[in-house]
Formats: sequence, structure tokens, C-alpha cells
Amino acid sequence: MSEERVEDLGEQGLLRRLLPFCADVVGDDGALMPIAPGQSVVVTTDLLVDGVHFSDRTTPAAAVGWRAAAANLSDLAAMGATPLGVTVGLSLPGSTKISWVEQLYQGLTACLGKYNTPIVGGDICRAGAVTVAIAAFGQVFPDRAIRRNMAQPGDAIVVTGRHGASKAGLEILLHPELGNGLQESDRQMLIEKHQYPVPRFDVLTCLEEILLSEKLTQLAEPSVRIAGMDSSDGLADAVLQICRASRVGAEIDRQQISMPPCFKTWLSDSQALNWALYGGEDFELVLCLAPNLAQMLVQRLGKEAAIIGVITQQSTVVLVDGCNSYPHEELSLDRGFQHF
Amino acid sequence: MSEERVEDLGEQGLLRRLLPFCADVVGDDGALMPIAPGQSVVVTTDLLVDGVHFSDRTTPAAAVGWRAAAANLSDLAAMGATPLGVTVGLSLPGSTKISWVEQLYQGLTACLGKYNTPIVGGDICRAGAVTVAIAAFGQVFPDRAIRRNMAQPGDAIVVTGRHGASKAGLEILLHPELGNGLQESDRQMLIEKHQYPVPRFDVLTCLEEILLSEKLTQLAEPSVRIAGMDSSDGLADAVLQICRASRVGAEIDRQQISMPPCFKTWLSDSQALNWALYGGEDFELVLCLAPNLAQMLVQRLGKEAAIIGVITQQSTVVLVDGCNSYPHEELSLDRGFQHF
Repeated sequence: MSEERVEDLGEQGLLRRLLPFCADVVGDDGALMPIAPGQSVVVTTDLLVDGVHFSDRTTPAAAVGWRAAAANLSDLAAMGATPLGVTVGLSLPGSTKISWVEQLYQGLTACLGKYNTPIVGGDICRAGAVTVAIAAFGQVFPDRAIRRNMAQPGDAIVVTGRHGASKAGLEILLHPELGNGLQESDRQMLIEKHQYPVPRFDVLTCLEEILLSEKLTQLAEPSVRIAGMDSSDGLADAVLQICRASRVGAEIDRQQISMPPCFKTWLSDSQALNWALYGGEDFELVLCLAPNLAQMLVQRLGKEAAIIGVITQQSTVVLVDGCNSYPHEELSLDRGFQHF
Repeated sequence: MSEERVEDLGEQGLLRRLLPFCADVVGDDGALMPIAPGQSVVVTTDLLVDGVHFSDRTTPAAAVGWRAAAANLSDLAAMGATPLGVTVGLSLPGSTKISWVEQLYQGLTACLGKYNTPIVGGDICRAGAVTVAIAAFGQVFPDRAIRRNMAQPGDAIVVTGRHGASKAGLEILLHPELGNGLQESDRQMLIEKHQYPVPRFDVLTCLEEILLSEKLTQLAEPSVRIAGMDSSDGLADAVLQICRASRVGAEIDRQQISMPPCFKTWLSDSQALNWALYGGEDFELVLCLAPNLAQMLVQRLGKEAAIIGVITQQSTVVLVDGCNSYPHEELSLDRGFQHF
């Protein structure tokens, strides 16, 4: 028996097959979701396109779904927001296997489910290539939102997790021979970091606990100021975007940037740094906040998180070397991934 | 000088060119939007794909943008919601002309601007074909939301506007010789209905006025019950979907269905009815409500609106003929547009 395809089921048939993955609210022209009193809604959107963001070589269907969900949820986490729901716009060729689409939705709901986030709406249509267009929305108290434009000179720059792993995983998937020098567990870890990134809502919980323990939540005005964004387009991009939006500069110590430990023996220093700074898709958080809060946050997050530098009054982002082995270097947006 | 293309500008260059079309809130990982106290957020999404929903033959770039905005806004109107903002996910080939993209955004903002709706976020990436993925969000008092599953036997079925015009406009664009028998003004009107549909927020205003004049807004419990949806997938589809969600049936009088007056001399009766019922993309509203309110609504909306039938306790949607020239006929979802 040949495998069932989208064109065999038709639009209504496919919709019926996907309905079990969606929340009960699906069925109207739009989904109606209550917002908690005093909170604002946060909206974000991310596209994943076959041949650009994923391919059969690098990403099984479940991982496409997981990454699409994670990319959008990460944007909410980077705003300090709690997720409420997502909509899924899916365009795909009629020849797409039904099992592929179901695995895509399984990946989507596996990631979303970890954060109690329902699929509340969607649209499906025919197209030459698969595109997954997700819009996510969440809620946040407006004075607790994390914004890019709120960094100030003297802020410590906290980076969660390790950078470069997603890029390394992608390169191993594209060129398997690259992974030959690695232990199998490291190889698997890097691939998993690429295929199944984790949005860092746990960082928000840590921040919440710190503010509570410091009784800072009772200071309604002025509220605790945290600038930040996620590192979806690379760590360097995140620091540069925050600095541009806040009209400040930054000094980053290359020795403080957390990378996967296996990079040390596997890659040259410059290759490792390049992937950590410009690789992208690690979906970690880059936060600028008062040094005392930054230290508490890094302590709670454990050894993967680090204070990598400080916000300055300059207009440039400079990479310095705490060990004085390398000259200073100015970072620029042009070295990150460009779609065109 | 050859015309500038997306690949000439690069991603950052294109983003800079599009930023003037967006609201000031663009620049963070997500957009932060306040919701009025007591209201819920409504979210919806619609995809438009080159070669499926539009093509150079039928739809100039500005009309692609307008229709993408209108399709999403119409979903909000169909929920009884006021729009707050949209996100725009755009995937396109690097060879796309910059002027085409700018006209797309001009069309988007021209439609959105009529309803004070900002573009609050987006994503751009490379792809083989142009896809416009819009998510729209709005707000509504939960007990005033228009839902599909709230129709009850005895409700009058109100249809706004005339149906079949968008399909007729599309057919004329695809086969210009079809329009030969038409007056130029009618030909233009049908094409405009296809390219620049109008979301029916004015119907919500009319409903508001009626409820106010009838002092029905003071009856907090039970609230005024209005079931409905838009006719984006066809008039027949809308009635069928409402009936399915509400577990009721309907009787529709074919003589009461409003169509463009030029259909009478231009098309056979059955062709005209076919386009009116199944053509789709007219983006009108189909509402089920108490007969006295329905009559007031139709009076306010003017001669294009009509009561086309009644909700019944049956499980079928039957097309009857008030003039007894045609036999009864059962409507089914299978005759509408199917993507696969």
C-alpha cells in the first residue's frame, strides 16, 4: 500500500486529521483568549521554509515542528512574557505525506505542551514548498516586559546557555565527516541542540525568584529594568541589536563566552568563537541588568550562564580578551546570517 | 538602470526599507499591545501564496497586500472584534523587485489604515515563491463575541453585501473575453470586488447602534446572542459551517440571495447562483440572530443586505425557491473550493 498523501485526503480531510492537535477554541474565524487583568498581550511571528531553515537532510518532521514552536516561544521568553497560544499557517505541496504532516504537528505540540501552550488557530494551503508560519502570543505586565531599548551603561551582560552548539549540530548534519573527531555523546548533543532547542522560560522563573527574594517586586515605580532579546540570529547580533536600540555600546570578553566543552579539542579557537558569535539559532537569552542582579542570576542558572561583558557609553561593540592573547576587535551585523 | 531587487539590498536593507510601514513597537522580539479592561484577545491567521491565491495576471502587488490584510481583518469582524494589530511573515525569492515588495506593503497599510490597525511585527525570509502569512489580533468583550456555534432554530440568517462578485472578477481577470458582454463600469466593479474586498466592520457598528437603540446593551445576562462567520470560503460554506458547529439546519431561499445586478443579463440563473454560493472571497458576513434584530439590521445596512433564510431543527441545509421555479436542493461542503 502506498503511503497516504495530502492530495489523497483533501483539505477537509487533512483538517480533520489535524484537529486533535488543536485546542477546543479552533473552529471560529478567530480564537478568543482571555488576558489576565493588567497584563498586555505580546505578539510575535516566525517563518520556517523548507530548503532555507530545514531540509530532509537536517531536520525530521517532528524537529521542524519543535523548532518552529521553539523559535516563537523563545521570542515570548525574550520579552519576559508567558505564552497563551499560537496560530499555525502551513503551506505545502499536495504530494506531502500525511505522516510527515502529523509528525510536524506532533513536534509542534510536544514543544508547546511543555509550556501549556495550545494551537488556537491556523490556515492550510497548497504551495510549491513547505512553509510553516507561526504567530505566538503571550501576556506580560507592561512594566515587567524585557525590551531591547532599555540597556544602560554599567549594565552587566548575562548570556544563558552555551553558544555555537546549534550551528555545530547543523554542520555535522550537513557534513557528517566533520563529526568524526567527536565522542558520540557530544555529536548527539550538538545535533539535538540544533533540532530541539529549548526556549528559556526557566530564566524568567529564576528572575522572578530573585526579584521576590530581594523584595524588588514591591518597588512598583521604578520597576526593575531588564533589557534583552534572544540569540536566535546569533549572540553577536543580539548584543549589537540591544546596543543599537538602546544607543549604547558594549565590551565583551571573549574568554567569558560559554561554548560546548567539546569545541576546545575539536575546533580552532577562531572557528569556535565564530560559531559561538555568529552561528545563530541557539535561542538563548542575552540580558542586560544591574551587576548585582546579574550575579545572582548567573549563580542560579549554573555554570552554563555567564556575565560576558558590560554595557558602555561608546557607540561600538568591542570584543576584548581578558587574557590578552588576542587584539581588540569590533563586532558588526554584517557577519551574521543574511537571508538575501 | 535595471530595477532594484531584494537580493541587491540584502535582508537588513530590505528591513530598513519596510520599517516606515510598521508601527513604532516593531524592534523587539515581540510587540507589546495593551488590551482594554474586560476584553479578550482574538487571534486569526491567513496565508496568501503566489500561484494559489494570486498571480501577476490577476492581482497587482498592492492588491495582494490589500487582500491579505482584508482576509485577516474580515475574520476579526466576523468575531465581532476590534482590530489591534497584525504581524506579517513574508517569504520571497531574492529576485523579487523591491518596488513589488513596497507596493505590497502600501496595499497592506492602505487597508489596515482604514481601521487604524498597525503592523506590529514580522519576519522575512528567502523562499522559492512569495507567501504572505498574516496573523491579526483584536479585542472583544467575551459575551459580545460572534461565534459559529451559537445559532438556534428560528434565527433569521442575515447576509451582508452581494455574493459572487469576487469570483466573477477573478474569472474576468483570468479570461478577459468573458467580460465582453458587460458594461465597462460593471466589469471594473467586479474586478475591484476581487482585488480590494472590504472587511465589514461597518456591520458591527450597525449592530452596536441597534443594540443601543433597543437598550439591549443593558441586559448583561443573558447577552444578545449572534452567531456568524465571514463568507471567505463561500456563502454556502459559511451557512454549512455555522449549522455544523451549532448542530442545526437551515432553509435558504435562493430568490433572497443578493448578487450583483449585472449577473441577471450576463449569466444564466444557475451560473449566477453557483458563483454566489460557492465562489468565495466576498468577505461578507453571515449572521444568525433573532428575526426582529435581523430586520432592523437589514434596514440599516440597505438594499444589498438580506435575510436569506431561517435556522431549522433539521440536520441539513436546504436551498428552496420562494417562487417555486426550482426543486429543493441540499447544500454540501464538497462543492466549495478545496486546496488539495
